[in-house]
Amino acid sequence: MPDVLDPTLSARLKRDDAGLVAAVIQQHDTGEVLMVGWMDDDAVRRTLTEGRVTFWSRSRKEYWRKGDTSGHAQYVKAASIDCDGDALLVQVDQVGAACHTGARTCFVAGGDLGAVVGERDPQDDGAPHATPQDRDQQDEENR
Amino acid sequence: MPDVLDPTLSARLKRDDAGLVAAVIQQHDTGEVLMVGWMDDDAVRRTLTEGRVTFWSRSRKEYWRKGDTSGHAQYVKAASIDCDGDALLVQVDQVGAACHTGARTCFVAGGDLGAVVGERDPQDDGAPHATPQDRDQQDEENR
Repeated sequence: MPDVLDPTLSARLKRDDAGLVAAVIQQHDTGEVLMVGWMDDDAVRRTLTEGRVTFWSRSRKEYWRKGDTSGHAQYVKAASIDCDGDALLVQVDQVGAACHTGARTCFVAGGDLGAVVGERDPQDDGAPHATPQDRDQQDEENR
Repeated sequence: MPDVLDPTLSARLKRDDAGLVAAVIQQHDTGEVLMVGWMDDDAVRRTLTEGRVTFWSRSRKEYWRKGDTSGHAQYVKAASIDCDGDALLVQVDQVGAACHTGARTCFVAGGDLGAVVGERDPQDDGAPHATPQDRDQQDEENR
């Protein structure tokens, strides 16, 4: 296995000030969003090549292969990168609970926030209101 | 509507150095992960109270209510916080494409990374290998 992240992919990553990208972990068959973790280049490389998810622990400043202590491993099924390179989506087979609390997901553990529900206007077909492109996000990509 | 984020929720947020948390946006009925955006306290407040998702644009340093330019609004169906307060999961009804490229999701736009697939040991029932708690993530929460 290569011990350096593919340079083409490395060039696409937009890291935060700590050198990390966000990794959204999703159960591959049910679609549940299990947790969000953080990865530096080497955690990305390990996750893409070892069949198991590895994060960078921001608190302990070390690699953390999910499940090595708890048994709650995440087996990688697929991984993709977003359009601007600051987030990954990793689809996994989660053994047991994703959350250290014992909850299936970290969002079940953290809890619902009671958001006001919005309703789509039945007339709204998604046609642009101003321009044919979402300039906002386009700008975002160019940061 | 209140114009300050609920102090109890504010106290739970673990912001990055820029004062932001990650927001995972998921289509409420299909489970598709559409995109990841960033929110400061006021973007969280707006998202929870206005029925539409608002982000903080890191590049333009301004609020960005998804769809105001493109028409591709995100109507909030539910929102939750993770166990350590550094990520939100917002379930939405996405009008049209979530991505400025026209792709349904930003991860479809960014593309698959060809990860090596991992396989769960059929004997692996998720029983702890070392301790009954996932000490790694527990430490993470205490950062």
